[in-house]
Amino acid sequence: MKADASERIRFDKAGLIPVVAQQYNTGEVLMVAWMDLEAFNATLSTGWMHYFSRSRQQLWQKGEQSGQRQSVVELLLDCDGDTLLALVDQTGVACHTGRRSCFFTRLSEMEPREIRNVLKSREQLYG
Amino acid sequence: MKADASERIRFDKAGLIPVVAQQYNTGEVLMVAWMDLEAFNATLSTGWMHYFSRSRQQLWQKGEQSGQRQSVVELLLDCDGDTLLALVDQTGVACHTGRRSCFFTRLSEMEPREIRNVLKSREQLYG
Repeated sequence: MKADASERIRFDKAGLIPVVAQQYNTGEVLMVAWMDLEAFNATLSTGWMHYFSRSRQQLWQKGEQSGQRQSVVELLLDCDGDTLLALVDQTGVACHTGRRSCFFTRLSEMEPREIRNVLKSREQLYG
Repeated sequence: MKADASERIRFDKAGLIPVVAQQYNTGEVLMVAWMDLEAFNATLSTGWMHYFSRSRQQLWQKGEQSGQRQSVVELLLDCDGDTLLALVDQTGVACHTGRRSCFFTRLSEMEPREIRNVLKSREQLYG
């Protein structure tokens, strides 16, 4: 894998691109986060998903603290070059709330409703 | 479905939220686009996916011109409220290039490589 795969990517004005992380063998959409060029290159060179944390404004290896890592299976760019789809193999859970996926709140009901169970406690994730 | 489901959504500074559209029964990620509040409410009230076109700066019903519509199966909000996952039933193809999915370019090779075939021609889509 060469870093110049990034030449096709159209980062936004903040230098970021949204990334959809999908479990490669089940199709479950786990989370959406953001990469800058550094995170993209770190992902390619290590085979582990890295993102740019917008809240902390820094490079972030997914699971570096919690152990809930994502190994890269395939990276796909969309037709206009401004979104990435990462097929990954998720260790444990993707969501910081302890759920497998971050998408656990259904909006199509009368009231928003959480429809996924917590699988790991905060203590299990962050000690 | 009530419009005040939108109260949980954290739109960005431009009033937008990214939306991942996923085929509900196969798990295929079809595309990522953006909604503003108007597009979200139009989606809830009609049952058809509507987006906000950033290039045209206007409300856009997916497939209004090409006929390649998306009916809504379920809308899910992520843990921090700033991304939507839409489970949809896609008529025909999602991508304006005539492919089922917009994610047809693999970046993990030495050179970016298109790995999905065109299913519908430009003429079939847009006349």
